[in-house]
Amino acid sequence: MEFNKITIIGGGTLGSQIAYMCSLHGKDTTIYGRSEGSLERAQKRVARWVKAVEKDIHVPAAEAEKAAKNLKYTTNLDEAIKGQDLVIEALPEDPKIKIEFYKKFAKIADPDTILATNTSTLLPSTFAEDTGRPDKYIAYHFANNIWINNTAEIMPQAKTNPALTAAFEKLSREIGMVPIKINKEQPGYVLNSLLIPFLTAALKLWADGVSEPAAIDKTWIIATSAPVGPFSIMDTIGLRTMYEITSMDKDPLVQKAAKMLKEKLDKGELGTESGQGFYSYPNPAFLDKDFLK
Amino acid sequence: MEFNKITIIGGGTLGSQIAYMCSLHGKDTTIYGRSEGSLERAQKRVARWVKAVEKDIHVPAAEAEKAAKNLKYTTNLDEAIKGQDLVIEALPEDPKIKIEFYKKFAKIADPDTILATNTSTLLPSTFAEDTGRPDKYIAYHFANNIWINNTAEIMPQAKTNPALTAAFEKLSREIGMVPIKINKEQPGYVLNSLLIPFLTAALKLWADGVSEPAAIDKTWIIATSAPVGPFSIMDTIGLRTMYEITSMDKDPLVQKAAKMLKEKLDKGELGTESGQGFYSYPNPAFLDKDFLK
Repeated sequence: MEFNKITIIGGGTLGSQIAYMCSLHGKDTTIYGRSEGSLERAQKRVARWVKAVEKDIHVPAAEAEKAAKNLKYTTNLDEAIKGQDLVIEALPEDPKIKIEFYKKFAKIADPDTILATNTSTLLPSTFAEDTGRPDKYIAYHFANNIWINNTAEIMPQAKTNPALTAAFEKLSREIGMVPIKINKEQPGYVLNSLLIPFLTAALKLWADGVSEPAAIDKTWIIATSAPVGPFSIMDTIGLRTMYEITSMDKDPLVQKAAKMLKEKLDKGELGTESGQGFYSYPNPAFLDKDFLK
Repeated sequence: MEFNKITIIGGGTLGSQIAYMCSLHGKDTTIYGRSEGSLERAQKRVARWVKAVEKDIHVPAAEAEKAAKNLKYTTNLDEAIKGQDLVIEALPEDPKIKIEFYKKFAKIADPDTILATNTSTLLPSTFAEDTGRPDKYIAYHFANNIWINNTAEIMPQAKTNPALTAAFEKLSREIGMVPIKINKEQPGYVLNSLLIPFLTAALKLWADGVSEPAAIDKTWIIATSAPVGPFSIMDTIGLRTMYEITSMDKDPLVQKAAKMLKEKLDKGELGTESGQGFYSYPNPAFLDKDFLK
């Protein structure tokens, strides 16, 4: 199985990054957007990824720009889907929006076209029947800033043809990603299955008044030689996301942490994006040379 | 409060490391052992720490050797305890052994002598009354190889005089440690409160067949820029310890992980110490230059 003609449905932050990395590695890539406005915003994002790959992974400027020029954009769903080897759905995390798209896809797509979802929080099994081809439907999950954080988690649902995993491993290497093979459906894939219990444990120590964010981070950094601790990771993820995750947890101490996060959000402390989270940016305490003393 | 005359009760791995670091930083330090044999073993351990600090933190050989020579050793408990500013109990994690010692300490010690416990798994509040001086009793917890992993977790129990925390922060800096202030009693201190949920989450993915140890480690390393992932950390900690921790957990998936760990132990796969754990040593896959590809 070869994936050469690829369409990304949705040109948001991740959709545009996936499309751009496909194009950068020579794939014939199309971005579908629902309106001219959304495609314009996608193009502006791609312009940022051009600069980012030049700076972060040293792609020569001419090559980085050519990859952006080679990208096709369309608001025509038929044109976007017909004749493609692979369609990657990168729509908002709203089941209604996804189902609406999958039903249209089922009518339009060629019989052999493979369909992947980039969902982070929903389970592909939920939608498998809506796609009309559960055996050709798989989850394919990227981290943010995929040219640096280049994991691509490949997760089948119960009805996915097992041969698809190998095809996505090959594709991942072709587009500069490290494939992470997941054997069966797992909420949170591998990364969030590790990250959420870890960050929740840190938030519980904070909410319970056991220790302070800086002391907790320091402990983790010294003990595991990690470059950062859980609270600086949370500032990067964004405290709004951490609030959403913790507010769904039933543990009373995690509920307390959710409340404390809400108080920070109400003060405009969103993490790195607002310049204030658990630390103050651009010069957070954990970058001080004496932080670990 | 100044801690200059310090006794460590027990010259095991950690006891001898704490004693040696105190001596290396100019403290008048004594190791108490129950028999001449245990003191001989402690002296052999200290000889290893001399080499380790020379190699790992570049202490000049003459200085490292002088610190070893300055250490006092005794099997006489009166001599070990009387007239000391601080006694650090580093006995095995057996409540009976600790209580027996605390009761003797209560009779022998000068009224102002401070008592600390290096327990990892027991709670100091359990023993506070046995010491005869709950206000002068605190937990003071070190990681292994303390000259490199130099966190010193300072954890009071409910009756500890709050002024003690500052005194132990000062002592920690004096003996080359980074003090981690814990505001109240917390099972597992800060480090294990983070590490255990994190490692357990990784073991659950493995036990459930979601993904393989190397793929899980790879995901963590790429996503968080950490130097190692959870399975290589577990090989270092030792699979016997991981088995002990997981076998106490009631989650059926963690129970399954405990069983799988037991199977590895039965085959002699103990982690780095036996050369085989989740990886094979001395050349584990995660050190391959292509591991992250």
